[in-house]
Amino acid sequence: MARPPNILFIMFDQLRWDYLSCYGHPHLHTPNIDRLAARGVRFTRAYIQSPICGSSRMSTYTGRYVHSHGASWNGIPLKVGERTMGDHLRDAGMDCWLVGKTHMRADAEGMARLGLEPDSLIGARVAECGFDVFERDDGMRPEGPDGFYDPEGAQQYNAYLSAKGYDSDNPWHDFANSGLDAQGNVLSGWFLKNAAEPANIAEEDSETPYLTTRGMDFMKSHKGPWCCHLSYIKPHWPYIVPEPYASMYGPKHVQPVVRSQAERQDAHPVLAAFMNTKVGQAFSRDDVRDAVIPAYMGLIKQADDQIGRLLDWMEQTGRLQDTMIVLTSDHGDFLGDHWMGEKTFFHDASTKVPLIICDPSPRADATRGTTCDALVESIDLAPTFVETAGGQVADHILEGRSLLPILHGQAASTGRDFVICEYDYSASPIAETLGVSVRDAVMFMVATTRWKLIHCEGGFRPLLFDLENDPDELKDLGASAEHADVIAEMYDHLFAWTRRQSQRTTRSEQQLIDMRTRSRGKGVILGVYDENDAPLDLTVKYRGRKARRFDDQTGKA
Amino acid sequence: MARPPNILFIMFDQLRWDYLSCYGHPHLHTPNIDRLAARGVRFTRAYIQSPICGSSRMSTYTGRYVHSHGASWNGIPLKVGERTMGDHLRDAGMDCWLVGKTHMRADAEGMARLGLEPDSLIGARVAECGFDVFERDDGMRPEGPDGFYDPEGAQQYNAYLSAKGYDSDNPWHDFANSGLDAQGNVLSGWFLKNAAEPANIAEEDSETPYLTTRGMDFMKSHKGPWCCHLSYIKPHWPYIVPEPYASMYGPKHVQPVVRSQAERQDAHPVLAAFMNTKVGQAFSRDDVRDAVIPAYMGLIKQADDQIGRLLDWMEQTGRLQDTMIVLTSDHGDFLGDHWMGEKTFFHDASTKVPLIICDPSPRADATRGTTCDALVESIDLAPTFVETAGGQVADHILEGRSLLPILHGQAASTGRDFVICEYDYSASPIAETLGVSVRDAVMFMVATTRWKLIHCEGGFRPLLFDLENDPDELKDLGASAEHADVIAEMYDHLFAWTRRQSQRTTRSEQQLIDMRTRSRGKGVILGVYDENDAPLDLTVKYRGRKARRFDDQTGKA
Repeated sequence: MARPPNILFIMFDQLRWDYLSCYGHPHLHTPNIDRLAARGVRFTRAYIQSPICGSSRMSTYTGRYVHSHGASWNGIPLKVGERTMGDHLRDAGMDCWLVGKTHMRADAEGMARLGLEPDSLIGARVAECGFDVFERDDGMRPEGPDGFYDPEGAQQYNAYLSAKGYDSDNPWHDFANSGLDAQGNVLSGWFLKNAAEPANIAEEDSETPYLTTRGMDFMKSHKGPWCCHLSYIKPHWPYIVPEPYASMYGPKHVQPVVRSQAERQDAHPVLAAFMNTKVGQAFSRDDVRDAVIPAYMGLIKQADDQIGRLLDWMEQTGRLQDTMIVLTSDHGDFLGDHWMGEKTFFHDASTKVPLIICDPSPRADATRGTTCDALVESIDLAPTFVETAGGQVADHILEGRSLLPILHGQAASTGRDFVICEYDYSASPIAETLGVSVRDAVMFMVATTRWKLIHCEGGFRPLLFDLENDPDELKDLGASAEHADVIAEMYDHLFAWTRRQSQRTTRSEQQLIDMRTRSRGKGVILGVYDENDAPLDLTVKYRGRKARRFDDQTGKA
Repeated sequence: MARPPNILFIMFDQLRWDYLSCYGHPHLHTPNIDRLAARGVRFTRAYIQSPICGSSRMSTYTGRYVHSHGASWNGIPLKVGERTMGDHLRDAGMDCWLVGKTHMRADAEGMARLGLEPDSLIGARVAECGFDVFERDDGMRPEGPDGFYDPEGAQQYNAYLSAKGYDSDNPWHDFANSGLDAQGNVLSGWFLKNAAEPANIAEEDSETPYLTTRGMDFMKSHKGPWCCHLSYIKPHWPYIVPEPYASMYGPKHVQPVVRSQAERQDAHPVLAAFMNTKVGQAFSRDDVRDAVIPAYMGLIKQADDQIGRLLDWMEQTGRLQDTMIVLTSDHGDFLGDHWMGEKTFFHDASTKVPLIICDPSPRADATRGTTCDALVESIDLAPTFVETAGGQVADHILEGRSLLPILHGQAASTGRDFVICEYDYSASPIAETLGVSVRDAVMFMVATTRWKLIHCEGGFRPLLFDLENDPDELKDLGASAEHADVIAEMYDHLFAWTRRQSQRTTRSEQQLIDMRTRSRGKGVILGVYDENDAPLDLTVKYRGRKARRFDDQTGKA
């Protein structure tokens, strides 16, 4: 068998599916990402498993639904024992390295309980989501009255900036993510107004070029086969970008906002609570959108240029020929659509992501430049990578489905009828607003190619969108009596999914089948009346035995 | 606060709920267990979580449903990371020891992956279901053409028997679980015909007295507070008992079989497959029942006598005053009822168990000698024990509910509307008989005080029993159009249960609530337009900052 290719697994953060020219954006030209799409397969219905960084990523990395791994919000640790693509790939003989962000919180309590030291090889992998770390950079280094959000955040990047003369106790904030006024005052990127300012940093020192270089550093120094998770922070907030990107786009390039007065007035109470957050209110303002969206577009344009730089370098070094390239995002961004900002709800703006896979193998030649409209989930990547590495997919653990048959033109879909996405808002103030208990502050989305149903725990009615006749998802049909049958059918899908055996991970299907005969061969003989009632070979150990009768008075036989 | 009591957690194996005189058996007098019931609370609707030893126990020990922990059949390892009552009790300052059976299979692969050595303190606990082991004795030492079922099985007990002069390579089989004919031939207890024979062993050396002595050995040598899981093997098969118990009961003491021709003829296909197993066919024979049931009763009578011996000893040594005593079973036994033997289906004969809890605390005085008809599950024991030990119940991990409020007369129920039981037959030949895939070879039971619904994956209709009007569960209403509403309501219960957040175990409810404000205090500022748009204290770190503008030509500010 041929040597497996390397896998370059590129993830952007908060990159909306329709903000690339290959996905149809009219003003944002992304020729380099489009070039990748022209060499591979572009998926048009790729859904993430949770519209928030950490949980989405934990699903992508484990290949399992949030309901299965339990890390249902940022900062909820992925429990010890959950295996990730790193573990599966190493089993298949492929290394798996991290360059960038995971948003993984280690299960320190679980590790301590099992005596796992974070500085041991095993402990480090458990603490880093199964990756070997070339550089971890979760990007974020926010600081508030209670200290740093992430004490480890952007440390190496900050050191890089300091060494280059960016003089600050937090150059990540003061330079990479802020502007500067004429008086030398920092214009913090945390304030949305400042999104229109150029970031006060040389473009080549900003985060996206920095991580691109680090990805190339990794590829230069590591022999394959490897999987390299090159995981960018941007275009995630703070929304601010250096020149020349800061000036590339303006309000005239901002797409019309997708929303209606009716959807706001008639909003389901849970949706209304998300609209009514500070973020929702801010992104409902035109001045906010006009400041933020051009910066967001600039960040994506910069990302595309960096992908161009990367592809050129890979072509020159031969890596393009021996590396599968996968490009996706962990979720989208509402950007004011549906009266919301951020990503924490279920419209396509948030839950659908770009996904492009370019397999260098000749077997993929037939599908180059094609699109695939099948329902795909981000949990499909882990099994795709395992199969690419030549391994057996542990489908009693991994809940996704390999996309290789699609990439190789052998299948048009994964055979999946619906996708699932989940959101847990129990750690959000919205739970209090709605008066919903911790147990009930969760939602499930189930979507077919035609319908999207959102179930909210806590006694609410569902939401329903008709994706065919209302692709903008403006009309919630969850209260429509005419759609009772559709709603029932979507609930049947959800119910079937919730009943799946997601925790029977210590025995494979084949092992379970093999167990069907094992206990008999080891002498467990059930329902056998006498020696004539069972095959000799199974009862042979119990036949013709002699025992000296024991006399408990004399102790003699 | 007063020192917590010890907990003596007695479990029998395969002890049917109605085979004790306090639960109404007319011929089997169990005055010692009845004495315990007179001092405590006797539960009349205690259900186990799976009708098979290993999975039922993994639920009892973890306090979690099978669907949550995944060890869904005998021999499917409990995965590394699942915490058990031992872990929770040690957190609360109480030791937790094993004397007897757990049927736990260690997750050797998961342990190796995490570098856990089975002979380390942590590794040993992980491998032994969270218990410290005084003596593990899973009882079973079957032997077949492929070797021993459990190479470790009954080793210490076999050594004990050998030392006492029982001369055999497997005295567990040849003496404790077999009879002897006049020619010195072993009459194996595996053959049901031989159940009527007396076991060829001195009564005091048989398994139940042996383990009782070992339990007393433990209590003599350990200071409290401890939880001691005294876990008997019997009255589990092989069905055979030494004198005088072998002669105590005969066919005239066998209760009328609970079955009907109609239930067999009209049986749901999955139920029919279980009836049609070799075990089901054997236990449908009167000669089998007449041989086995008197032996089964003798084993229970012996168990009761040993409980009397234990209670007397505890009274003499003062342990009765400082020890909560809990007595239950891991499942029942069909014994021919419903044309089945063994336990692997959902009628009460199998899924309901005796449960008696005697709390020595004066707070429990009001409930002594009472019965409780509330729906109780075996997963309730772990939180009951934690609360008894004075600990906080980790209810983000433990899915059961403490029974202390019932024991102390403060509540009449746990507030639970339904119980859940599950069975996974994917590792059984029945899956092949039915032509059902590994994924679909599972069943769920959901029962209220009135109705019991059984859902079988694989496209089958459900089964439904009316527990009020048909307490013997002879009439399956699963195809009755009149009961469509009941069936829908029972499915609603099951669906609500399957949607529960069972894997969000790394953060408590209080931690999730605390997280609602944390990220803002650490500088993540979302949806804030400018400095005037957010409280000063939250944005203070981003105000009034200066940055030297960097000149990338000269490197100077």
